Amino acid sequence: MQTLNQIQETFERYLEANRFEGLPAELYDPVNYILSLGGKRLRPAALLMAYNLFDEHIENALPAAFAIELFHNFTLMHDDIMDAAPLRRGKPAVHHAFGLNAGILSGDVMFVLAYKYLSQLQSPNHSCIVETFIKTAIEVCEGQQLDMNFETRLDVHIDEYLKMIELKTSVLLAAAMKIGALAAGAPQKDAQMLSEFGRNLGIAFQLQDDLLDTYGNPEKFGKKPGGDIVQNKKTYLYLKALELANHSAKEQLKMWFSSTNEEEEEKIRRVKNLFNKLEIKDITEREKHEFQTRAFENLAQVNLPAYRKITLEKFAYALMQRES
Amino acid sequence: MQTLNQIQETFERYLEANRFEGLPAELYDPVNYILSLGGKRLRPAALLMAYNLFDEHIENALPAAFAIELFHNFTLMHDDIMDAAPLRRGKPAVHHAFGLNAGILSGDVMFVLAYKYLSQLQSPNHSCIVETFIKTAIEVCEGQQLDMNFETRLDVHIDEYLKMIELKTSVLLAAAMKIGALAAGAPQKDAQMLSEFGRNLGIAFQLQDDLLDTYGNPEKFGKKPGGDIVQNKKTYLYLKALELANHSAKEQLKMWFSSTNEEEEEKIRRVKNLFNKLEIKDITEREKHEFQTRAFENLAQVNLPAYRKITLEKFAYALMQRES
Repeated sequence: MQTLNQIQETFERYLEANRFEGLPAELYDPVNYILSLGGKRLRPAALLMAYNLFDEHIENALPAAFAIELFHNFTLMHDDIMDAAPLRRGKPAVHHAFGLNAGILSGDVMFVLAYKYLSQLQSPNHSCIVETFIKTAIEVCEGQQLDMNFETRLDVHIDEYLKMIELKTSVLLAAAMKIGALAAGAPQKDAQMLSEFGRNLGIAFQLQDDLLDTYGNPEKFGKKPGGDIVQNKKTYLYLKALELANHSAKEQLKMWFSSTNEEEEEKIRRVKNLFNKLEIKDITEREKHEFQTRAFENLAQVNLPAYRKITLEKFAYALMQRES
Repeated sequence: MQTLNQIQETFERYLEANRFEGLPAELYDPVNYILSLGGKRLRPAALLMAYNLFDEHIENALPAAFAIELFHNFTLMHDDIMDAAPLRRGKPAVHHAFGLNAGILSGDVMFVLAYKYLSQLQSPNHSCIVETFIKTAIEVCEGQQLDMNFETRLDVHIDEYLKMIELKTSVLLAAAMKIGALAAGAPQKDAQMLSEFGRNLGIAFQLQDDLLDTYGNPEKFGKKPGGDIVQNKKTYLYLKALELANHSAKEQLKMWFSSTNEEEEEKIRRVKNLFNKLEIKDITEREKHEFQTRAFENLAQVNLPAYRKITLEKFAYALMQRES
């Protein structure tokens, strides 16, 4: 069994050895660029850890782990265009650094490359793995569409929000776990349980994201908190506040979230005051804890001795306690 | 053996039965829209004809044919954004009808759907089929990138142009033929020969496209000829003219192709005059004929009785003689 650190180092070496040197360079440079921006490599690490539960030779699963990372970065490249985001991991987003067309086309080729690496995986469960990947890719597109739809909708229900983050974020973590397990020849039941573990963990992860954006420690968070409030993002915090607020507080919230002309600090302070009165931080933390608990229950049901699951447990705790 | 008409009708019925009714509608409406714009369905028809050479049950190959059509339309959706094309088949392009984000995301999901349908194909050659599809998808992206690079390059050589149209256009026709043959269990050698047939036919097809745009009969062509000249497109005609022109004619051509402010009719007339003096129409027709001849040689080498290849032969002739 390898530790998370060992797994991450192995994956980084594989990434380095698999840079894209093909031509035309204008197509492949943005692919190497976005991959070089780093990130936590959570999804490939999750895939390799799930694989490692059932098989020691994690090198067999590296192409599949790379496929998941390529797919994830393809979605980032296209999402950044759709969300008009100028930055990615503190650096210019691809469409800013290389132009709109590069953002579209290099994203497209990354998507093909994801399939290419996935198809290199040798496994008796290959067709089930491909099916999982395709189903997940469709769901991620649906999640991004829902997210865009929510921007202009005023009546988003909190259950719809949870469904959206499940599709946009957590199904890919679930797929990474499931594909890792299947690639190692795990029984279907265990692979499915790991998928549920990833799904619940992914939702908890996104709720933690929402919390950090408003309540994160600025020194550790790495960016100024309150960005979601400034951008009128319909997060769990906002939607829960709308659900719980009385008429007057609801009107105030809606007023703050329908304008982009307010003075930023003032807006953040006033919205946080409203959140605080409604105890939104505690409520969101409880909701996060709920999904986290379900995730650990899923992991407990995987039919392996407890000591083998320690790496995944630690990984899950680290994700939940992260401050950036 | 089915005729081209029968095959096309079968495919249209399959398309109709496989409309996308999933949610969110904002994601799937543009997919149904672009598929409903029609087009000649050349690629799925080619796949089904190639299949039909070796097996009567073309219904088995319908998911793969649909995959090719979905992939083709995904590239159209994204290319129209990159080329800033307002129209597709005389109707508003997706990014005009539904917005930029829809053009990107619905294109993405179409690409996944292409893989989904391809994965539904039952064939002992499945892994070779998937490999062909992935290789082709990468080449199509590379071709589109080359095409965009050429827009700003002044030193495009005619061989580079032929390579670009091979990647952007003809590899997909080649892949359709090869996948059709492989799906029917054809010997590798025959599948490869049909792939070459598609590749050469595709290049001839694109040269015919270049010819029609400048020399087409307006009544049959469906749009005003000369569009490529007005848009300064570096077609085979233009690049060949540059290659053959003397110093003075070369300077005139470059002058006309570096401006967008000229009066359209005058520009078309003057450029066509230059083309005519250099006999560009005849030269391009000879080049087209060269690829067409190679294509028929490829088809002749497929190890089947001649009568079985009549449908594909007719298809190839129709493509070469089309006036729109």
